[in-house]
Amino acid sequence: MSNTTARIAVAYHSGQGHTARQAEAVAAGAAAVPGAVADLVPLDELTDEVWQRLAAADAIIFGAPTYMGSPSAVFKAFVEASVKVWAADLGWRDKIAAGFTNSKSMSGDKLNSLVDLVVFAAQHGMIWVGLDIYPGWAESTASIEDLNRLGSYIGAMAQSDADLSAEKAPPETDLRTAAALGARVATVTLRHQRGSLAA
Amino acid sequence: MSNTTARIAVAYHSGQGHTARQAEAVAAGAAAVPGAVADLVPLDELTDEVWQRLAAADAIIFGAPTYMGSPSAVFKAFVEASVKVWAADLGWRDKIAAGFTNSKSMSGDKLNSLVDLVVFAAQHGMIWVGLDIYPGWAESTASIEDLNRLGSYIGAMAQSDADLSAEKAPPETDLRTAAALGARVATVTLRHQRGSLAA
Amino acid sequence: MSNTTARIAVAYHSGQGHTARQAEAVAAGAAAVPGAVADLVPLDELTDEVWQRLAAADAIIFGAPTYMGSPSAVFKAFVEASVKVWAADLGWRDKIAAGFTNSKSMSGDKLNSLVDLVVFAAQHGMIWVGLDIYPGWAESTASIEDLNRLGSYIGAMAQSDADLSAEKAPPETDLRTAAALGARVATVTLRHQRGSLAA
Amino acid sequence: MSNTTARIAVAYHSGQGHTARQAEAVAAGAAAVPGAVADLVPLDELTDEVWQRLAAADAIIFGAPTYMGSPSAVFKAFVEASVKVWAADLGWRDKIAAGFTNSKSMSGDKLNSLVDLVVFAAQHGMIWVGLDIYPGWAESTASIEDLNRLGSYIGAMAQSDADLSAEKAPPETDLRTAAALGARVATVTLRHQRGSLAA
Repeated sequence: MSNTTARIAVAYHSGQGHTARQAEAVAAGAAAVPGAVADLVPLDELTDEVWQRLAAADAIIFGAPTYMGSPSAVFKAFVEASVKVWAADLGWRDKIAAGFTNSKSMSGDKLNSLVDLVVFAAQHGMIWVGLDIYPGWAESTASIEDLNRLGSYIGAMAQSDADLSAEKAPPETDLRTAAALGARVATVTLRHQRGSLAA
Repeated sequence: MSNTTARIAVAYHSGQGHTARQAEAVAAGAAAVPGAVADLVPLDELTDEVWQRLAAADAIIFGAPTYMGSPSAVFKAFVEASVKVWAADLGWRDKIAAGFTNSKSMSGDKLNSLVDLVVFAAQHGMIWVGLDIYPGWAESTASIEDLNRLGSYIGAMAQSDADLSAEKAPPETDLRTAAALGARVATVTLRHQRGSLAA
Repeated sequence: MSNTTARIAVAYHSGQGHTARQAEAVAAGAAAVPGAVADLVPLDELTDEVWQRLAAADAIIFGAPTYMGSPSAVFKAFVEASVKVWAADLGWRDKIAAGFTNSKSMSGDKLNSLVDLVVFAAQHGMIWVGLDIYPGWAESTASIEDLNRLGSYIGAMAQSDADLSAEKAPPETDLRTAAALGARVATVTLRHQRGSLAA
Repeated sequence: MSNTTARIAVAYHSGQGHTARQAEAVAAGAAAVPGAVADLVPLDELTDEVWQRLAAADAIIFGAPTYMGSPSAVFKAFVEASVKVWAADLGWRDKIAAGFTNSKSMSGDKLNSLVDLVVFAAQHGMIWVGLDIYPGWAESTASIEDLNRLGSYIGAMAQSDADLSAEKAPPETDLRTAAALGARVATVTLRHQRGSLAA
C-alpha cells in the first residue's frame, strides 16, 4: 500500500491576494507530506475543469476571505453551484474537508466563516478535519510567531493588516499555521485512504 | 409624538419565489402596525435606489433562502456591497434589524443562515430583534398551524416542500409567523424612535 | 486486518430520558456494524471510569438535550472537565467525533447545540463525522417516517413532544436517524483504524 | 421624561477573576451614562435575590468565560434555570440584552460563546445590542491599545494571558472595550424606555 496517493485540493477564493497566499501555504503544507499531492483550485470561474479537479480529489480544503462576517460572495456562488454534486448521490461523500479564512482583525468574526464551511461540508457528507495545535500567543512570555497565534481549531485563521498588500500580509506566522493545516489534512487523508484499500 | 412614523424595509432575495412570499408576509405584518409603513426591497439589482431606500429606513429586516446551509449568493453579494455603508461611519448604526429564511426541510441549517444575518447586522452596529413567540407544534396535542411551528427565535423560519411552487409553499402557518416578525419589528422600532425624539 | 475493532463510545447526558433513548439508538446503530462495539457512557457522574472508557474509545459520539438553545449544564460540566484530557498533549487527538441532540420543537436551536459540539471536538483535535443522508419530509409526497426528517447534517436531531414521556418520544423515525449516525461513525472509524494499521 | 432611569444588570460568572474584571468595566461604563444605574450580579449562587434583581433590570448584559469553546458550566446552569422566567410568559421579553466573554487566546472560539448568548437571549424575547466600534489593531500603524482590538461586534471580547492573574489581565485595552459596551447598552436602554413612556 506504499503507493497510495492522497490528492488534496485547495478550493479557494481570494479578493486581493491575501487569502491566495494562505491557500498557497496550505497547499505547500499538504504537498510536503510524502504520498500527498496538492492542487490549488481558484474558484473565480466555475469551469467544468474546476468540478473535475474537485471530483478527483480525496480531500478538499475550502478557503475564502471573511467579508462582513462570512465567506465572500464569489465563494458562496461556488457553494451554491455545488448543489449539482450534492444532487448526484452526494458526490463528495466521505471526502476529507477542512477550511481556512483571512480577515483584517484578530477575531473578526472569522469563526462564523469557518462554521459556515463546516455546515456546508456536512451537507455534502464530508468528514471534517481541523487543527490539532494548542493556541499560541496566549501567555505573557509567548510570541506572535507561535503556531496558531489566533487560537482557532475548526480551521486555520490568518489576519492581514488592512493597509498591507498581499506581498506583506498575512504574516509568516499565519502562513505556517496554514501549512500545518495542509499537512494535517494530507496525513489524515492518507490514513483514511489506506483504510479504504484495506477494507 | 403621535405622528412618528416607523419605516420598515424588508431587504430580501428570493430564488424561486418562496422567500418572496415570506418577505411579503413580513412586510404586511409590519404595515399593519399603526404608525408603521413597509417597503419591500428586492436585492437582485443593487441600484442606487436600493441603497437610498435602505438609508431612509428605521429598520431593515433581512431575508434570503438558505442554500447549502447559508444565505444565497445574491444576498451575500448585497452583504459584501454594504461595506460602503459600513465604511461611512456605520451608516446603519442603531437601525433596528431582524431576519428570516426559507428552505425545504424543517431545520435544514436555517439557524446558521440566521446567525449569519445577526453577525452581519452587528458589524453594522444595528440592534437585533427576534421573535417573542413560544415554539409551536411541540406537544402531542399541538398543530402544524401554530405560530412559530418550527421553533425559531432569533428570526423567522419557513419551510417549503421542494416540489411545490411559490403559489403553494411556504404554508400559511409560516407566513403568519413571518407577519408576526414584521409586526414585532414595527412595534419595537416605533418605541425606539419615540425614545429618540423624547431624548 | 480483519480483526480490527472499532470502539465507539456514546458520551451523553439526558435530563428526562428522551436523549437517553436517542443515545441508545446511536449505540445500537454503531454496534450493528461488523467490527464495531459500542459503549454507552452517561455523564451524570464524572468518575475516573468515565474518563478511562473514553480514553479507550476510537470514536466518541457526544449527545445532550438542547436547553435554552445549547447543550445542558451537566453536559457542559463534562466539556469543561475534559480540559485535563486536552492539557495532556491532546489526549483525544485524531479520535473520530460526532454529535446528537434532542429538543421539543422542530428546529429549536438544535443546530446551535451541534455547532457547540463541533467546536468542542475541534479543540480536542478530533475528526468530525456527520450524517450523509438527504433531508427527509421535505416534499409534498414525503413522510414524517423519512430518515433525517428534520434536515440536519453535522449531527443527528430528535424532536420530542413536550408532554410525552421518554417511553413515547422521540418518535421511531428520529431513533432510526440516530442509529444511522452510529452506523456511519462506526464505518468511518473502522476505515480510519485500518488505515492507521496499514501505515 | 428626564427622570427616566435605566437599570443595567451585569449578570456574569467568572472562574478566576478575569471575567469579573471585564464585568466591572462593563458596569462602570453603563453607570457613567447619565440616567443609568448598574447592578453587578454574580451568578455563582442562584438565590431568589438574583432573580429579583434581574427581573427589576431594564437591560441584562450576560458575561462568562469561554471554556473549551463555549460559556462556562456555571453560566450554563444559570441559562437552564432561567427557563422558569421563560415559562412565565417570557418574563424578560423586550428587555435589552448584550454579552461579553474572556479567554486566553485572540479568537479562541469566543465568537461561539457570544452566539450562544445571542441565541439564549432571543429565546427570552430580548432585544440584542452589540458594539458599534470599528475593529482596532487591524492596520500596520494601529495599536493594541485601540478600542475593539480583537474585532468583535455582537459582543465584547477580552483576552487574558494564561499565566497572568486577574490583577494583570485582561489588559486595560479590553476593559475599555467592555466599558464601551456598557455605555452603549445604557444609551440604547434609555432610548427604549423613553419610547415606552411616550407611547
